[in-house]
Amino acid sequence: MPRPTPLSGFPEWLPAQRIIEQRAVEIITRTFELHGYASVNTRAVEPLRELLRKGETSKEVYVLQRLHAEPGAAAGDDDLGLHFDLTVPFARYVLEHAGHLTFPFKRYQVQPVWRGERPQDGRFREFWQADIDVVGDGELADHFEVDVPLVAAEALTALQEIGLPPVRVMVNDRRVADAFYRGIGLADVDAVLQAVDKLAKIGADGVGNLLRSELGASDAQIDATLALAALSGGPEVVEQVRELAASSGVTGAEAVDLEAGLTQLQNLLVRAQTRAPGVVVADLSIARGLDYYTGAVYETVLVGHEKLGSICSGGRYDSLATDGSRTFPGVGISIGLSRVLSRLFSANLATATRSVPTAVLVAVTQEESRGESDAVATRLRARGIPCDVAPAAAKFGKQIRYADRRGIPFVWFPGADGAADAVKDIRTGDQVDADATTWSPPPADLWPRAVPTAEG
Amino acid sequence: MPRPTPLSGFPEWLPAQRIIEQRAVEIITRTFELHGYASVNTRAVEPLRELLRKGETSKEVYVLQRLHAEPGAAAGDDDLGLHFDLTVPFARYVLEHAGHLTFPFKRYQVQPVWRGERPQDGRFREFWQADIDVVGDGELADHFEVDVPLVAAEALTALQEIGLPPVRVMVNDRRVADAFYRGIGLADVDAVLQAVDKLAKIGADGVGNLLRSELGASDAQIDATLALAALSGGPEVVEQVRELAASSGVTGAEAVDLEAGLTQLQNLLVRAQTRAPGVVVADLSIARGLDYYTGAVYETVLVGHEKLGSICSGGRYDSLATDGSRTFPGVGISIGLSRVLSRLFSANLATATRSVPTAVLVAVTQEESRGESDAVATRLRARGIPCDVAPAAAKFGKQIRYADRRGIPFVWFPGADGAADAVKDIRTGDQVDADATTWSPPPADLWPRAVPTAEG
Repeated sequence: MPRPTPLSGFPEWLPAQRIIEQRAVEIITRTFELHGYASVNTRAVEPLRELLRKGETSKEVYVLQRLHAEPGAAAGDDDLGLHFDLTVPFARYVLEHAGHLTFPFKRYQVQPVWRGERPQDGRFREFWQADIDVVGDGELADHFEVDVPLVAAEALTALQEIGLPPVRVMVNDRRVADAFYRGIGLADVDAVLQAVDKLAKIGADGVGNLLRSELGASDAQIDATLALAALSGGPEVVEQVRELAASSGVTGAEAVDLEAGLTQLQNLLVRAQTRAPGVVVADLSIARGLDYYTGAVYETVLVGHEKLGSICSGGRYDSLATDGSRTFPGVGISIGLSRVLSRLFSANLATATRSVPTAVLVAVTQEESRGESDAVATRLRARGIPCDVAPAAAKFGKQIRYADRRGIPFVWFPGADGAADAVKDIRTGDQVDADATTWSPPPADLWPRAVPTAEG
Repeated sequence: MPRPTPLSGFPEWLPAQRIIEQRAVEIITRTFELHGYASVNTRAVEPLRELLRKGETSKEVYVLQRLHAEPGAAAGDDDLGLHFDLTVPFARYVLEHAGHLTFPFKRYQVQPVWRGERPQDGRFREFWQADIDVVGDGELADHFEVDVPLVAAEALTALQEIGLPPVRVMVNDRRVADAFYRGIGLADVDAVLQAVDKLAKIGADGVGNLLRSELGASDAQIDATLALAALSGGPEVVEQVRELAASSGVTGAEAVDLEAGLTQLQNLLVRAQTRAPGVVVADLSIARGLDYYTGAVYETVLVGHEKLGSICSGGRYDSLATDGSRTFPGVGISIGLSRVLSRLFSANLATATRSVPTAVLVAVTQEESRGESDAVATRLRARGIPCDVAPAAAKFGKQIRYADRRGIPFVWFPGADGAADAVKDIRTGDQVDADATTWSPPPADLWPRAVPTAEG
């Protein structure tokens, strides 16, 4: 075949980048596990009818066909599509396996998802997500809405160890927005949310024009909607919303609903001040479009990289997983792993200390003595030291160059004719006699590490 | 939606099974990394034209379509399909990224693959593989054909720790088979290989009939072919093949080719006696159908579960990755992770010590003091102890049942009014005063483990 070219929207990493990805996944999943989330993988496909329950995403779904299916066969009930997120498959998993799960059920899931969208910077057709969700059987305590974004914030903050900039988690509550819009007389709440969701893209004037042309909103309604979306900050925001609602004429049942949402939002902001100071802020413009959220909603930006878009989003959903008789309300959040990594790589923020696992290259003097080099490697591996045996017998200089090109820090020279073995740190040139049953590299050299580029 | 039912051929594991899967992947990838293999992930899709280069597999490929693609559009050059193995995508990856890789390049890859086949026991439509491959730039030393199956054997043997039965790795060499068949006058080697590949399924008589009807083979040719396929064992097999070839009339160029293949096979068997005694045997019936192999070939069975089929197969391929000017010969092997796991689960060979990561459940006495329980959990997590906070304030008996249902071994009771905290081992009932800044669980309880069922 001719030399292949990359497929737009399907990123692949080189081995050194993959080491950074592995370390990122390790940091994230360890944080999830420390908080008691159990790992689940779901299959990549779902019945098409399940994927199309939300109209807006239908155009993004990849449908599977057997190559030799009858041509022109219409899409039917049995058709399968690739999942476009991890929440819809997880909701199906919970319904399917409910009899074997214990609730509230906390799970994490790190898998690729697929969307047939136009690729852009940080937006791919195949990308990895790292999700956590908690679902209850029939009910779900409010405190999980507090926990979920704080666990994600903890994981993302831990990624600073490998060079990720700090994050800002922005929270809002659908119940606040819902009650507010209804309270000022805008009954089509979904349409308002869709308009406000475009704020970053089309600006306040654009959102105002949309509200006017599509919903017939008055100037006062537009002003109130934009004033709400402009509020952001710490727990003090709650009182500001309350005042804005009062001055905008929100009363009666809507005022009661608003207060319920504000209580929950305040609870989250206050707890966050203790557990993740400076990381979590209220932002009343967060809407999450037409998604399935019914309570808290979350978005997250990398500080200094806001234009990349949200790298971690989610919220509470009360009716995603239901089989008619049982309902499993949930709350979850999704780290956009591929988006985070693509920025770490494109902005050169993270560096791998080498491109292979290997800490020690065992030299081979001549092919006849390869067995002795293999035996050294076996002894080192038995003590947990990753090593490789030179692919060909060669002069020592060539073997050192082989190690150097891969970043392997040590080269081992088996001793000939009863002489002691020796090991050389090729970075310093220091060489010492060594015994493969006792020698170990310094802990920092044992495995490749991912570090901030400045330190690399 | 109505309660969903499983999709045949797309297995999913419950959380406790997933813990066993995670541990299996950890054992396998650690073995690969100790041998210097670097991790690579490839995208799930390849251009359809690449996937269809091997005619036989074409019917198994899943083709992707955007939901709103023009109806009736013919399959074109830009069409994408899901990969059906990890070798074809890896060969493409090597060609595409050759300028950024160092050769010989050793990589491992753990990902799902998809085949639209009829599901059977241990045969799925979506399944995970764990592969290693070594590719060289232009040439690849023979000793890698020895290394690759021994690394796989080491990984599979390490899985006995979680309950996997011993394995038997069966090796053969395409060059031996090729020279032998040509030497006895059967020129269509591919057709002979395909017939011999059916030996387990249709028996010696069936293979004989196939050779007679499709290739016009004589009784003497059939006898020689079946006699070769019947040979198996240690290094002594090499001499048996030599004798059979001589008595079957293999001479001249074919005898020279045969000897080259036998030297390589003997080399592998002798080295295996040192590095994996009793695990690797020659089996001259191993053919690997129409695959791209050109040298050593490997298959592996679980001892006592031979009917499950091969759980780890591969071989050497000289011309899979070539762009016309450069060729990257390789050798690789693939562990059928889903097949291995499905047998571990269906035969109840492995058990997880619990179904959640959580080692400690921190009790909540009343919702007002949830913050104190959160603080205990934060202190434990800071020292690497996975814990969960009770989802609702409840009597202690209820909190202990919550832990018990998940297999969480310890419940932590925050002390009220200045009293000391206490931690209870709910398996023994032992309770001791404890401080969250110093107490640790026994190492065996810190994380969930996968163990052979008898020990569970």
